[in-house]
Amino acid sequence: MRLTRYLPILDWGRRYDRAALSSDLVAAVIVTIMLIPQSLAYAMLAGLPPEAGIYASIAPILLYAVFGTSRALAVGPVAVVSLMTAAAVGEVAQAGTAGYAAAALTLALLSGGMLLAMGLLRMGFIANFLSHPVIAGFITASGILIATSQLRHILGVQAGGDTLPEMLTGLIRALPQTNPVTLAIGAAATAFLFWARKGLKPALIRAGMRPGLAALATRTGPVLAVVATTALVAGLRLDRQGVSVVGAVPQGLPPFTLPALSPDLLGALLLPAALISIIGFVESISVAQTLAAKRRQRIDPDQELVGLGMANLGAAFTGGYPVTGGFARSVVNYDAGAETPAAGAFTAIGLAIAALLLTPLIHYLPNATLAATIIVAVLSLVDFGILRRAWGYSRPDFAAVAATIALTLLAGVEAGVSAGVVLSILLHLAHSARPHVAEVGLMPGSQHFRNIRRHRVETHPAVLTLRVDESLWFANARFLEDYVLDRVTGDTALRDVVLMCSAVNRIDLSALETLESLNHRLRDMGLRLHLSEVKGPVMDRLKTTHLLDDLTGEVFLSQYDAWHSLCGKADAAA
Amino acid sequence: MRLTRYLPILDWGRRYDRAALSSDLVAAVIVTIMLIPQSLAYAMLAGLPPEAGIYASIAPILLYAVFGTSRALAVGPVAVVSLMTAAAVGEVAQAGTAGYAAAALTLALLSGGMLLAMGLLRMGFIANFLSHPVIAGFITASGILIATSQLRHILGVQAGGDTLPEMLTGLIRALPQTNPVTLAIGAAATAFLFWARKGLKPALIRAGMRPGLAALATRTGPVLAVVATTALVAGLRLDRQGVSVVGAVPQGLPPFTLPALSPDLLGALLLPAALISIIGFVESISVAQTLAAKRRQRIDPDQELVGLGMANLGAAFTGGYPVTGGFARSVVNYDAGAETPAAGAFTAIGLAIAALLLTPLIHYLPNATLAATIIVAVLSLVDFGILRRAWGYSRPDFAAVAATIALTLLAGVEAGVSAGVVLSILLHLAHSARPHVAEVGLMPGSQHFRNIRRHRVETHPAVLTLRVDESLWFANARFLEDYVLDRVTGDTALRDVVLMCSAVNRIDLSALETLESLNHRLRDMGLRLHLSEVKGPVMDRLKTTHLLDDLTGEVFLSQYDAWHSLCGKADAAA
Repeated sequence: MRLTRYLPILDWGRRYDRAALSSDLVAAVIVTIMLIPQSLAYAMLAGLPPEAGIYASIAPILLYAVFGTSRALAVGPVAVVSLMTAAAVGEVAQAGTAGYAAAALTLALLSGGMLLAMGLLRMGFIANFLSHPVIAGFITASGILIATSQLRHILGVQAGGDTLPEMLTGLIRALPQTNPVTLAIGAAATAFLFWARKGLKPALIRAGMRPGLAALATRTGPVLAVVATTALVAGLRLDRQGVSVVGAVPQGLPPFTLPALSPDLLGALLLPAALISIIGFVESISVAQTLAAKRRQRIDPDQELVGLGMANLGAAFTGGYPVTGGFARSVVNYDAGAETPAAGAFTAIGLAIAALLLTPLIHYLPNATLAATIIVAVLSLVDFGILRRAWGYSRPDFAAVAATIALTLLAGVEAGVSAGVVLSILLHLAHSARPHVAEVGLMPGSQHFRNIRRHRVETHPAVLTLRVDESLWFANARFLEDYVLDRVTGDTALRDVVLMCSAVNRIDLSALETLESLNHRLRDMGLRLHLSEVKGPVMDRLKTTHLLDDLTGEVFLSQYDAWHSLCGKADAAA
Repeated sequence: MRLTRYLPILDWGRRYDRAALSSDLVAAVIVTIMLIPQSLAYAMLAGLPPEAGIYASIAPILLYAVFGTSRALAVGPVAVVSLMTAAAVGEVAQAGTAGYAAAALTLALLSGGMLLAMGLLRMGFIANFLSHPVIAGFITASGILIATSQLRHILGVQAGGDTLPEMLTGLIRALPQTNPVTLAIGAAATAFLFWARKGLKPALIRAGMRPGLAALATRTGPVLAVVATTALVAGLRLDRQGVSVVGAVPQGLPPFTLPALSPDLLGALLLPAALISIIGFVESISVAQTLAAKRRQRIDPDQELVGLGMANLGAAFTGGYPVTGGFARSVVNYDAGAETPAAGAFTAIGLAIAALLLTPLIHYLPNATLAATIIVAVLSLVDFGILRRAWGYSRPDFAAVAATIALTLLAGVEAGVSAGVVLSILLHLAHSARPHVAEVGLMPGSQHFRNIRRHRVETHPAVLTLRVDESLWFANARFLEDYVLDRVTGDTALRDVVLMCSAVNRIDLSALETLESLNHRLRDMGLRLHLSEVKGPVMDRLKTTHLLDDLTGEVFLSQYDAWHSLCGKADAAA
């Protein structure tokens, strides 16, 4: 059983049959055709030679098939991680050098090691610490950065930059060098791909194709663009007119590679690798969970970390770069009918055949076409609607999204995502430092106690009941103390204060000290402090301390008991 | 009214009378006598000339008297902040140089500016983000560091270091150079001061002194030690035998000084200044609150930030260094009868007179005596009991304290306090990422719903009720979704899922999206999702979204309504 948990292949592999095999084979053929241009394009986005994209789609897919829990996830290079790789590796090496490719391997190694370690430590919950609006903002801003970064290939000019202002400045400066032939090819490919996305499917259906098949055929748009523009450039030898092409790509299976391991390099790539791991994991798990839910399957986040970790380690030793589960390819894999991770394995075989046989055919593939496929793919990620939704719902959420988008565009991907994470945690902390406390009274004719501000309830002048609606910890305990002391100061009729702890799941040591201090201060004012509805685990812990011995009042099992007992005594005394 | 809030002196000053004046004058005389050796000693600890300690006790006290809200707080140099000053300024300048003193002024300026800004922004709550055990651990470790750092003055040797291993190595290496006369004076002074702390008060009471007076007289121990050892060194000219003395101290009022303002220096001191501000504020506010509670007064944390900020700005422009409210001096001030901040103003006048007239008298004061006063003062701060208490109460609290103590001793004060703060927040976040969710049923004969694992309650096979005991935010929402989906998977009798939201005070945008996704996934499984006991503010916010329109179930005002309605329908359908 344990082995099956760590090697999900033992589970689905045992029940593998002929029907699953044929579904998986069909899906694999379709995904392979789609992945060839996509892999080349994302390798270009990452600043790596085109074969790196193909290699990063072979070993990682096989390893994920063995260790991953999703039936339909397709692992490989994706847009945002490619951009983050370019930003991280660009800091330590010059694009196009051997050192650059070696550093990309190191980044994959670090990222794989981190993911694997987090998986073995069962830290899948870490993905929860990225708020959804922050991720949505980051993806939107990254899409804009990626699309902008590709404009230089469409124009056929040299330009760089890691931030939007840098990129735009570079493009404007390089505009006079625009290569008109490249621009014509790039613009045509972009226009065709946009049309293929929106108009091809209805056209095919009108032509009599089944809707499902038409949807899959639409996915071959990039392949058609690649074939047509490559043939054009090769036929007219447009590369002699300055059209930049992919050029010679080595023919063969992925090589065995060793990542660079100098301490300086490892130190410099540690933080980027952590960010890539987290962002990649979040992107991958959300795709996997969405697809699994459609078939009533469950994903194990901890084992997903292991699967992605192994995939990245695989990429590090076979000439790849950081990979994760991609949205577009996974959806295609799912729609094409993939039933098990074996579909991924067959895709890997298909890509290996492509690496062996097809690379000479892409010599004349124009970079402008690859740029067009990237631009069209990432613009579907851009969704500024998140800003509007966040603004309408809550200001802190809006602040976190706006800061993430602005910083990603103006200061780069690492600054953007870090700021988003830190800001959303700080805003949450600021919020949780003010615990919700309500003064409650008895609902007439019931045993319920509700907020006196919202309901007509019975109260007693000598008894103050405060319902504490959150666990007490160091950041909010003092606020509770201040609230109580402010409330009781000057209220001369008061004799008893009851803290109704029905929503207190935990009291940390700081909060315990604050309760002790509150007890003493109330005693000095001639008031008794009582507790009611203390939960079992909290009570067990309080029993190890002096609080209950020193408490001036009692601990009541239910608030109704407290009310009954205290109001009775107060009236008898009056 | 607003002016009074920002200038509390307008409040108490208006009611100042002859009785308060005489109480304040008596307190001021006692505190002045106590502060002279203490100020000299802490300046030495901070690596500054002795007069800096006196200057840091004059203008800051006066400014705090105008802007502060505590009636008894005495502001000036304190041990921990002096140590932190030495650590911070030691990074940017050589002790004993003019640059060192100027950097200490810059540190006071930055710290004062930050405190003032936080006060004007009403950020007094920030003190709550330091957990009590972490502060206790930090103070304990700082006490050990401070005492160890002073041993070199007792031995009469040169030795340095910012961490415990560095200090101990330096001391052991310097041991052969020990000056026997210095050691004799230092050991005698230390022994006398320890005895004065414990034995002098009982001895005085036995000799017929009133206990209150005896307690105050005990505080003059350091002054007696200073007078005796200074007379001894001056009489026998022991300075010629290698006893290190305070030496020439300029005679006169505090000078007007300008802090150094180079961008490099400001950048290097920014983080230390922030840490000093926070630690100083926390120390000061806890003393002020303790003393105020004894007299049923209240402290305004935001205005305290303003008072401490002004005090530090005052220190920056009058030759001082960072200051805060000190525990020992404030307690003496309180015990001696100080009724208003005017006592502080009179203390400042007393110290100004001392700076004008008494400085020649301390020429022969041995540094070993000052070191002895520091050691005896700070060892009372050391309390390893916090480790035992934290261990007995909760492991996360223990981990935070142990890490703070270990890192403070082994890596210095800044690393220690930063690690403590970050670790305690991370531990809290890790904890709050798993919201408390309980499956509940109806308590027979009541309208109460309690945990089915702890109480005998009624349940219905078609209705699952889950009570959510925490606000939903991005880090815990997914956990709730996983919990619900795990619970319902395979439960074929189930038709309705009710989330009882009585303890949900807030639902952020991420959590809203998770609820929407949960609603869809349950719908796909043929289950309806209901909400009950949603609080008013949460409901108002949900009404701005699509969740309520898309909800497959209903929103019930009370859980009892939900139970009644759903179980009735389920039974009718069966």
